[in-house]
Amino acid sequence: MTEAFLHETTAMLERTPRVVRELLDGLPASWLDTPDTADGWTPRDVVGHLISAELEAWIPRVEIILEHGPDRPFTSFDRFAHVERDPEAKLPELIDRFAELRTANLRRLAGLVEDGDLDRVGRHPVLGEVTLRELLATWAVHDLDHLAQAYAALAGSHDEAVGPWKAYLGILLRRDDPSAQPG
Amino acid sequence: MTEAFLHETTAMLERTPRVVRELLDGLPASWLDTPDTADGWTPRDVVGHLISAELEAWIPRVEIILEHGPDRPFTSFDRFAHVERDPEAKLPELIDRFAELRTANLRRLAGLVEDGDLDRVGRHPVLGEVTLRELLATWAVHDLDHLAQAYAALAGSHDEAVGPWKAYLGILLRRDDPSAQPG
Repeated sequence: MTEAFLHETTAMLERTPRVVRELLDGLPASWLDTPDTADGWTPRDVVGHLISAELEAWIPRVEIILEHGPDRPFTSFDRFAHVERDPEAKLPELIDRFAELRTANLRRLAGLVEDGDLDRVGRHPVLGEVTLRELLATWAVHDLDHLAQAYAALAGSHDEAVGPWKAYLGILLRRDDPSAQPG
Repeated sequence: MTEAFLHETTAMLERTPRVVRELLDGLPASWLDTPDTADGWTPRDVVGHLISAELEAWIPRVEIILEHGPDRPFTSFDRFAHVERDPEAKLPELIDRFAELRTANLRRLAGLVEDGDLDRVGRHPVLGEVTLRELLATWAVHDLDHLAQAYAALAGSHDEAVGPWKAYLGILLRRDDPSAQPG
């Protein structure tokens, strides 16, 4: 019996670089210079972080689960690695880099994992036992989480430009107060 | 002197249908059946609402500002028009419809508005006086707001699938508690 999970998760993962490109590549700079919150990330930071996760988190953790199971905890993942790695790179270069890494990693995933592996267990250094299935679902939802962050950053660049309409725009209100509800 | 505002705002508006298509068209149904919050919207509802706004809100309000200024308040906009209008339409049909309307409306905008019109004033029935510039910025940020909502809905479909990693995924935590912060 073939499970849909691997196919359906990969279907989301392979979209993300295309969505990032359509959303950000060539966008005027006036949309791109603002972080999602006061101490948050710009869209460029988000792409840098997605690159870090492709390099350090997803496939390395798949490999640890397959080779060592729960005996070897995952190595920790530096959420701010992009700050020192990519200070000079232009956004289009980062988008290309992310797309290349994602393509290579999905090819690697297809060679590594079969349906029967999805319930194999690994050990997260903080969260404890997790399954390979949970790791792959998290890979996809982590994309969505950070893309939503990029949307908040894009919107934030026009916080003043919308004038009184801000009262109706939850994506702007939440940058000031996470519990704010639009009118 | 030519302002960058019209060009830069249009640059975002013309991307949205392409982003929606890359993100949603052909995505497996297991990603698409969940609303962003308990009484919220699925990605299909979001596209329906964006269609409503193309039909009823943006260009009609531009025309009211240009023809009547602040003397005639904007007509009100039914945020739930899609529920009765589109009950049978499939998501790919809605994406096509949205893309067609956006293309036509941007063509109409280019024929209607010049830089010198951007400070012209209209009257929102609740918010009071607003400028054409604020209306156009709101058109773009409204896209971003609802796209971010679609991301929350997509993520929500895999709320259980990520297992203990939910503690790190703000996009999931906020569906339960808007003020939640990831660990």
